[in-house]
Amino acid sequence: MADRDHTPDIHREARLGFDEAVFCAHKRTEQLQRILDHAQDNQRSLLLTRLAPEQIAALPDAYRERIDYDTVSRTGIWGARPEPTSTARIALVSAGTSDSAVAAETIRTLAYYGEACHEIHDVGVAGIWRLLERVDEIRPMPVVIAVAGMDAALPSVLAGLVPGIVIAVPVSTGYGVAAQGHAALHAALASCAPGLVVVNIDNGYGAACAALRAMRAMGSGARATDG
Amino acid sequence: MADRDHTPDIHREARLGFDEAVFCAHKRTEQLQRILDHAQDNQRSLLLTRLAPEQIAALPDAYRERIDYDTVSRTGIWGARPEPTSTARIALVSAGTSDSAVAAETIRTLAYYGEACHEIHDVGVAGIWRLLERVDEIRPMPVVIAVAGMDAALPSVLAGLVPGIVIAVPVSTGYGVAAQGHAALHAALASCAPGLVVVNIDNGYGAACAALRAMRAMGSGARATDG
Amino acid sequence: MADRDHTPDIHREARLGFDEAVFCAHKRTEQLQRILDHAQDNQRSLLLTRLAPEQIAALPDAYRERIDYDTVSRTGIWGARPEPTSTARIALVSAGTSDSAVAAETIRTLAYYGEACHEIHDVGVAGIWRLLERVDEIRPMPVVIAVAGMDAALPSVLAGLVPGIVIAVPVSTGYGVAAQGHAALHAALASCAPGLVVVNIDNGYGAACAALRAMRAMGSGARATDG
Amino acid sequence: MADRDHTPDIHREARLGFDEAVFCAHKRTEQLQRILDHAQDNQRSLLLTRLAPEQIAALPDAYRERIDYDTVSRTGIWGARPEPTSTARIALVSAGTSDSAVAAETIRTLAYYGEACHEIHDVGVAGIWRLLERVDEIRPMPVVIAVAGMDAALPSVLAGLVPGIVIAVPVSTGYGVAAQGHAALHAALASCAPGLVVVNIDNGYGAACAALRAMRAMGSGARATDG
Amino acid sequence: MADRDHTPDIHREARLGFDEAVFCAHKRTEQLQRILDHAQDNQRSLLLTRLAPEQIAALPDAYRERIDYDTVSRTGIWGARPEPTSTARIALVSAGTSDSAVAAETIRTLAYYGEACHEIHDVGVAGIWRLLERVDEIRPMPVVIAVAGMDAALPSVLAGLVPGIVIAVPVSTGYGVAAQGHAALHAALASCAPGLVVVNIDNGYGAACAALRAMRAMGSGARATDG
Amino acid sequence: MADRDHTPDIHREARLGFDEAVFCAHKRTEQLQRILDHAQDNQRSLLLTRLAPEQIAALPDAYRERIDYDTVSRTGIWGARPEPTSTARIALVSAGTSDSAVAAETIRTLAYYGEACHEIHDVGVAGIWRLLERVDEIRPMPVVIAVAGMDAALPSVLAGLVPGIVIAVPVSTGYGVAAQGHAALHAALASCAPGLVVVNIDNGYGAACAALRAMRAMGSGARATDG
Amino acid sequence: MADRDHTPDIHREARLGFDEAVFCAHKRTEQLQRILDHAQDNQRSLLLTRLAPEQIAALPDAYRERIDYDTVSRTGIWGARPEPTSTARIALVSAGTSDSAVAAETIRTLAYYGEACHEIHDVGVAGIWRLLERVDEIRPMPVVIAVAGMDAALPSVLAGLVPGIVIAVPVSTGYGVAAQGHAALHAALASCAPGLVVVNIDNGYGAACAALRAMRAMGSGARATDG
Amino acid sequence: MADRDHTPDIHREARLGFDEAVFCAHKRTEQLQRILDHAQDNQRSLLLTRLAPEQIAALPDAYRERIDYDTVSRTGIWGARPEPTSTARIALVSAGTSDSAVAAETIRTLAYYGEACHEIHDVGVAGIWRLLERVDEIRPMPVVIAVAGMDAALPSVLAGLVPGIVIAVPVSTGYGVAAQGHAALHAALASCAPGLVVVNIDNGYGAACAALRAMRAMGSGARATDG
Repeated sequence: MADRDHTPDIHREARLGFDEAVFCAHKRTEQLQRILDHAQDNQRSLLLTRLAPEQIAALPDAYRERIDYDTVSRTGIWGARPEPTSTARIALVSAGTSDSAVAAETIRTLAYYGEACHEIHDVGVAGIWRLLERVDEIRPMPVVIAVAGMDAALPSVLAGLVPGIVIAVPVSTGYGVAAQGHAALHAALASCAPGLVVVNIDNGYGAACAALRAMRAMGSGARATDG
Repeated sequence: MADRDHTPDIHREARLGFDEAVFCAHKRTEQLQRILDHAQDNQRSLLLTRLAPEQIAALPDAYRERIDYDTVSRTGIWGARPEPTSTARIALVSAGTSDSAVAAETIRTLAYYGEACHEIHDVGVAGIWRLLERVDEIRPMPVVIAVAGMDAALPSVLAGLVPGIVIAVPVSTGYGVAAQGHAALHAALASCAPGLVVVNIDNGYGAACAALRAMRAMGSGARATDG
Repeated sequence: MADRDHTPDIHREARLGFDEAVFCAHKRTEQLQRILDHAQDNQRSLLLTRLAPEQIAALPDAYRERIDYDTVSRTGIWGARPEPTSTARIALVSAGTSDSAVAAETIRTLAYYGEACHEIHDVGVAGIWRLLERVDEIRPMPVVIAVAGMDAALPSVLAGLVPGIVIAVPVSTGYGVAAQGHAALHAALASCAPGLVVVNIDNGYGAACAALRAMRAMGSGARATDG
Repeated sequence: MADRDHTPDIHREARLGFDEAVFCAHKRTEQLQRILDHAQDNQRSLLLTRLAPEQIAALPDAYRERIDYDTVSRTGIWGARPEPTSTARIALVSAGTSDSAVAAETIRTLAYYGEACHEIHDVGVAGIWRLLERVDEIRPMPVVIAVAGMDAALPSVLAGLVPGIVIAVPVSTGYGVAAQGHAALHAALASCAPGLVVVNIDNGYGAACAALRAMRAMGSGARATDG
Repeated sequence: MADRDHTPDIHREARLGFDEAVFCAHKRTEQLQRILDHAQDNQRSLLLTRLAPEQIAALPDAYRERIDYDTVSRTGIWGARPEPTSTARIALVSAGTSDSAVAAETIRTLAYYGEACHEIHDVGVAGIWRLLERVDEIRPMPVVIAVAGMDAALPSVLAGLVPGIVIAVPVSTGYGVAAQGHAALHAALASCAPGLVVVNIDNGYGAACAALRAMRAMGSGARATDG
Repeated sequence: MADRDHTPDIHREARLGFDEAVFCAHKRTEQLQRILDHAQDNQRSLLLTRLAPEQIAALPDAYRERIDYDTVSRTGIWGARPEPTSTARIALVSAGTSDSAVAAETIRTLAYYGEACHEIHDVGVAGIWRLLERVDEIRPMPVVIAVAGMDAALPSVLAGLVPGIVIAVPVSTGYGVAAQGHAALHAALASCAPGLVVVNIDNGYGAACAALRAMRAMGSGARATDG
Repeated sequence: MADRDHTPDIHREARLGFDEAVFCAHKRTEQLQRILDHAQDNQRSLLLTRLAPEQIAALPDAYRERIDYDTVSRTGIWGARPEPTSTARIALVSAGTSDSAVAAETIRTLAYYGEACHEIHDVGVAGIWRLLERVDEIRPMPVVIAVAGMDAALPSVLAGLVPGIVIAVPVSTGYGVAAQGHAALHAALASCAPGLVVVNIDNGYGAACAALRAMRAMGSGARATDG
Repeated sequence: MADRDHTPDIHREARLGFDEAVFCAHKRTEQLQRILDHAQDNQRSLLLTRLAPEQIAALPDAYRERIDYDTVSRTGIWGARPEPTSTARIALVSAGTSDSAVAAETIRTLAYYGEACHEIHDVGVAGIWRLLERVDEIRPMPVVIAVAGMDAALPSVLAGLVPGIVIAVPVSTGYGVAAQGHAALHAALASCAPGLVVVNIDNGYGAACAALRAMRAMGSGARATDG
């Protein structure tokens, strides 16, 4: 079944401005090895998301040692990555410590693509003074990523306070009606705050990519308005 | 089928401190008439909830004219009701004008049982300054009823700001994932704010009854601690 | 119940860069009148969304005649609005004629805030050549709004083809499993295309506001990178 | 990522009358240590909820030995706690032995804040004589917490029998349609008994906090009625 | 499309002990006429369920006048029916007046097949004394049908009090989480009371048929134990 | 927390004709021991359902050795049990080998209460000749229990073929839309076959109890018709 | 908004072997007119599905008179259509008269494309002899379309009896758990019968198109096996 | 309980053209052994699906060594199987490497029944050029099986591009709204592409059987078209 190998979307960078990451959940050791071999042969870097500790442990040493692995975000980076920008244009705001894994996936993805980000954590709305004290740091940012589980009231409040693009990332923490993040997802989608946009539950990688699209659009914005 | 008549829970007032209201949805004209006749024969007042305009229009004049009907809350009151308390101990806070029907059901129920309530409307969290400006009015209240649809972030924020009993009433406004109030219900139940309690979607009547239970408990509190 | 009146979020424009629209579903005639009176007294324009023909027909002539009403999008505009930009920086792509009401709400909202938009309709993926023929028109746009019901494959395909910010608006057309737009919503959220963002089902207004946030961010981008 | 640390809501006690508990599910060992260190530095007590045996086992001895851990409720207490009140004003009523973990979380939370509670267990409605025999003990209590899984008929029956504030805690026991507690949650929310309020599935902690709010409100009630 | 006509299950009575009823929802006038013509030609009686007033109004006079129609249960009877049994062996217990349409469908179905039934109404568990006062009437019955909407605690309590076959009929009354009867259905299925059986929401006809099966089984029971 | 002990429903046998079984899921070792001690002290037999191998392994030898444990049904029997009836009046029909655990729970429960049952397995409707060949064995039975997962067409077909009481037990086998038995549950509830009754998913115990109620009712039927 | 017009997928016939039908739900009068004008200008025939009587009534006479409209299937045919094949290779089997609208949509679609079909109606499994009597007519057919609502056991039984391609069309009849056809859909998808395929609820059109694909494949099969 | 043994559907091959496979999930070791013994006694081959590595490891050597087991597809083959056809008439198209387990189950099933299949992998629509480059290979195939998880846009796009029978297999990969494959299932069912048919989530076996039915129908097609 040689035909069933990985066919990387090699022109993605040219089309979208950033290359393809590898979603590692459900992948077997031999699939991961083939993907890394292909990157090696083509001298490409790779971002590996949802890479479980058991998966990385199962890789032969020669592969494992070359992966920069982060246990909180469960991401691995293979190969070089750019220096981050010196000034952050993206704010990453999270509601509580339970959201840290998803927040970390976002931050690592941005870092892989060379974007710094300004982090503000543990400012959930149950103690809203924590958010209000820091809103002046967030307001100038063109893109704000709001990571929150449970009732996810944080993105709604934020999108009513700041003018930038606000991207909600619902998180699958909690229990009962909150479990698996559907309450958070629905709250973010049903928000009264105008123009809040949403990605899938726990999709820190997707929120980072949306922010990258915005960064690219801002860079190319002048041209677009001229054209 | 004479046996199928209404059997009012006549001892409810003695047991619970307030008598039975009549939930009028799904009731036919002849059922409503028998219920009103029974109240008349026993010289009781009645609160009628979910009474549709078509239902009241279908009643004979002799019944209809004696009902104090409110179109916003869809409630009717048959017979006398007490003077309201001069000082409100209950705050009713709503997020938007779309919540007014449910808020009105709560207010009418409280009024029927003689409780005044302090109303604060249109303070949804998408413009959180509106709520923060008025939090000092709400904080001293032992009971706060928060009425909100869509993402229902208001009850969470409120329960983090004030020490009283906070009762969330999710409202079935909105569309898409918000429709029928389930996003609001789940957000209120999954709230990070400690001790927020919740009633069924659109159940303004139930929230008022919970507040009445709290009022009764506060009155009888001294005795209970002695016993 | 004088307190229950509309409390407009009057500082929203200063905070967010665009003022508050009025979501008219569930609003009674007298509520609409008070809102319009308030706008009149403060010499503000207003965008009215989800305004049903029956609602506008129930308004007194003096109000109705001053509203620029569009039956397809069910939006009304009260007062003046700016000239649109001469060059479109936003593409509006829709899958089929069944999506036209939601697409129209987006276009009207953008127009109310002075943004032109480049429209491409009826390019659903069941006949993918229709989309591929027009992808060169879409690729230069910094923001692309993709409106689609049923299986909503269009946003996924688009987000894999163009580098801009892609905002999916799921539409509540279809029947069976598609009904009410949840299949479309879930397909857009679960998309493999990186960085696709999503708004609530049928929320054409919200997608337009997100695009406006991006337009503002692009304008202010230079300052942010300096700060 | 030093910024990602725990930011405790230190003014919560002043605002709400009780301090913040730590929800330990999803927290890693190093996060728990930082939280405990912070409490140590500020000489605060802490209630730790949803603390799994594996989590406590993973803590270094110096931390673990100072935590008063209860395996049934999965709660830990760090530091001193007040003497309980001599007279219980709160009844805790549970339906079956399967509800004991959630009941225990409620009881431990109340104990942490110094509230005694009167416990009545195993009185589910399938053998209703068990409840009826004990209703006289429950009736004088200003607050009743009803813990029940499966069909959760207990809170409904109780709320029809006693005048106090009745707080339903649905429990995630059972299987098939009952699983995860949604049948119990919906039954409690849809109850015909007036004024029954509900917290999230398995949220024994939240029910205790709601009871604490009521206790505080009863203490401050006299003042509120004067003001 | 002559082939698309009604093909009655003419041997059903021989196989099951009772003949086929006609479920009239979704049926057009011409379909109803063909079914009635067929019954006429074969000199059979017919029970028509879910027959809407508009459907009966649309039938030609010659058909309409021969149908014994009941507006509460929405059932029609065409042709003769047996005298009811003089002694009821089936109890029909309902929770509230909102359940009367479904209760009536059950009673009419039993009557059509010649079974009397002992009716007890309006004994929902929110005022449990109403049920307890009448439990001695119910206990001797071999079959008990419990009709209840909202939280449907009645079947659970009943099945714990009486030894007969208890059949729960969930009712689609209520609103919010109760709406369409799913909370009632799930509560009945998840009941702790042993041996409670359940039919579909609003399926009063089905509950009656189950009772008929039990009546037939009781009649044939002696034979079966011998065989 | 001595009060939190097991309170057995000791009069259940007098009320319902069979005593209480112990649902062991979620029960800890010490809870099980207290329950068994109580049975020992009162010289009662006990049926233990949902008793996992790990639970029985954790019990001290003195308890474990006295339990008659069956690994397929996960049931344990403590103490004596009656001789089964010599003639089966109950048929147990299952669709496939995947249903055997649930079928076994039913059979063991019936055996515990002294009822024999006629077993017919592996007659799912995908090869309907298997069922048709054996329908003559099933037809004379006053009670038929149909155990089936996946699409659960077996109970529908059976209830159209035999006149007895047919009790469907949906089984949580399968995957995708079938998983957890909801497709089977809904198919059984929505069945066109008249008078089919249903218990919760995997509730083999409940189906057996319903059959026992029917057996008792058949025994007492004569008296009831007289009374 | 001239751009928002209908863009028919004009090459569909070349690609797929059959042209595009028009799904008329949600379409306004002016949209329908533009579509019909376009067909007129291009001398094409059109199949119009989900065309409500109100929609056809709202069309100007010149359009309405040229549409061959069928009220049962709610389909319209504009222009010429081919003679049907003389021999049916497709069987259409339906469970009950409530399924006739969906069955009719399938039959009309097949007729529009020139395929005859062998119809067998009212053979639901609650009286399985009706189906078994006719299985010999169905077995030789290469394609069988099974239309059924409620519990949809018919497709499962059929797919176990005949060797052809069996396409299940779940129907949105019924009430309670059956409503909107999800129980039928899930039962068909979870069927134990191997190789049963399914289309969306009520999608008679889609089932017909699948059958057409099979007819085309059968015609081209020889070539494919050579290639 | 000897009666509870496996009753194979031995005439299935004669009826359907292919014999019965064994779905091994939920089966215990002794059940598997009895099934294999039966096959041995009757000299039949067997396809074993959903056979977990733990299940095969638990079998005695004499059984295990005779099973041709594939870890990716989790299928086992017992006994001989036919040579595959030399020319593939079935295309198997998959969206990503996460779909390989389900794709492999399909391929193994086809191989067991002697059908070759043309495999094309990793052509998900996020990089649609990958699919477009290979569409000419797919177009001539009379049957196309499209395996895809997440948003499952691939089957929709494919069914708009090729004329054959297109069978969608939704895959339970992904997370959040995609998890368990319901988003993919609904997207496939709601597809705008005409005539797309669907099997249960992860049902690679079922898709293969549907393809086999089509192959058999094509074989018999000539006769049908002649008749």
